[in-house]
Amino acid sequence: MAEEKPVTACLIVIGNEVLSGRTQDANLQYLAKALNDIGVRLMEARVIPDVEATIVATVNECRAKFDHVITTGGIGPTHDDITSASIAKAFGVRHVRNPQAEARLRRHYARPEDLNAQRLRMAEMPEGAELIDNPVSVAPGFRIGNVIVLAGVPRIMQAMFEGFRHRLRGGAPMLSRTVVAQVPEGKMAAGLGAAQAAHPGVEIGSYPFFRDGKLGASLVVRGTDVAGVAAATEAVKAAVRAQGGEPIDEN
Amino acid sequence: MAEEKPVTACLIVIGNEVLSGRTQDANLQYLAKALNDIGVRLMEARVIPDVEATIVATVNECRAKFDHVITTGGIGPTHDDITSASIAKAFGVRHVRNPQAEARLRRHYARPEDLNAQRLRMAEMPEGAELIDNPVSVAPGFRIGNVIVLAGVPRIMQAMFEGFRHRLRGGAPMLSRTVVAQVPEGKMAAGLGAAQAAHPGVEIGSYPFFRDGKLGASLVVRGTDVAGVAAATEAVKAAVRAQGGEPIDEN
Repeated sequence: MAEEKPVTACLIVIGNEVLSGRTQDANLQYLAKALNDIGVRLMEARVIPDVEATIVATVNECRAKFDHVITTGGIGPTHDDITSASIAKAFGVRHVRNPQAEARLRRHYARPEDLNAQRLRMAEMPEGAELIDNPVSVAPGFRIGNVIVLAGVPRIMQAMFEGFRHRLRGGAPMLSRTVVAQVPEGKMAAGLGAAQAAHPGVEIGSYPFFRDGKLGASLVVRGTDVAGVAAATEAVKAAVRAQGGEPIDEN
Repeated sequence: MAEEKPVTACLIVIGNEVLSGRTQDANLQYLAKALNDIGVRLMEARVIPDVEATIVATVNECRAKFDHVITTGGIGPTHDDITSASIAKAFGVRHVRNPQAEARLRRHYARPEDLNAQRLRMAEMPEGAELIDNPVSVAPGFRIGNVIVLAGVPRIMQAMFEGFRHRLRGGAPMLSRTVVAQVPEGKMAAGLGAAQAAHPGVEIGSYPFFRDGKLGASLVVRGTDVAGVAAATEAVKAAVRAQGGEPIDEN
């Protein structure tokens, strides 16, 4: 069966706080799963600093390479929030105040003195951008071309993504089966390699663990074809049994 | 004061399991802090799949761009462990069995039948690589050029890094001060921007949070110059007080 070309995505996490180790990124894992659910494969993720030249170069490289690019972080009101202006530069368009975004901020900040110049910066976007709603803290994200710009705070990012996901083009959903084996992966490696060779249409991953002082491995079969994934899963189980293990279905 | 050129690093996390959302990466945060301690600045991190062409291209791009490149993942015994062979390809050298690594594996796997062909693959390395000890599960990592190849399992990665870190060239350690403010960052934004403008030698970051139903921000001042960091921290505290907040030192 000819495989459909997968719909791909790249995540760009923008923020010095992740690169300094201050903050543990939580957006990659969330988006990886959420994209998977709509048949989009996350092919790469990059964590980059709040540096304009780096943002411009990374966005331009990734938007040429992947179907969708999602960025998180750097769209707040402070001086280190430079994502929006940098993306305007990447697209070679003006960075302008978006009247719809401004109206939302004016409704939210009832007293005029609360909507200071810095907060108004959150209404500035690349010319031609389309807004992405922020039901948590109002200031919107946006999409321009195939680049989707979301907040960095996980709760806000998730709310933005959940409201927007139906507008993202997806593909065949990725199916996944996990088999847990209380056998060291080195013992099963030949059998797993043979299973992979016999089922080239799926992806077989082996992820070792220590549990209760014993070595084992989670064996993950992924693919878009139901029958292919099922057959490869049986081959993986056979490789476990061949080494005296009892494969356990995890999902 | 002329600033010393910082020593830079890039982390390449290799593994489909992180991009599928199955596994939450823990190595980025650990290495970011550990590198910081020895005066190395993590400038970028990339998460890439177990795909040879991607590993080769990413390693070659990053080793030209940064002082140190660290990879994690993909050095086990199974068919999806292709990091070592891909790095040999990136350097244009042969992928050969390392006698020292082989001797370690032979000591560890006492019965000859336990050291099967797949496990012996863990002794194969780019020609000229120097070993990095693995005190947890024996199979070593390695260094070639400015690329340091570590395991993906956090416990093993950490043990490898801790034994190796004294051999990494570092620079001036990055100092960091954190001030917590129970003030929305949008209110302080002008003051923080002025503080950053007045102290260009340091980096001032603002990281908003919700706590007990209130908006606040952690304000982080980073730099290599003790006096510069102290002065900028005072400027940040003044910006908090100007909005009626009481800055709290976090470290």
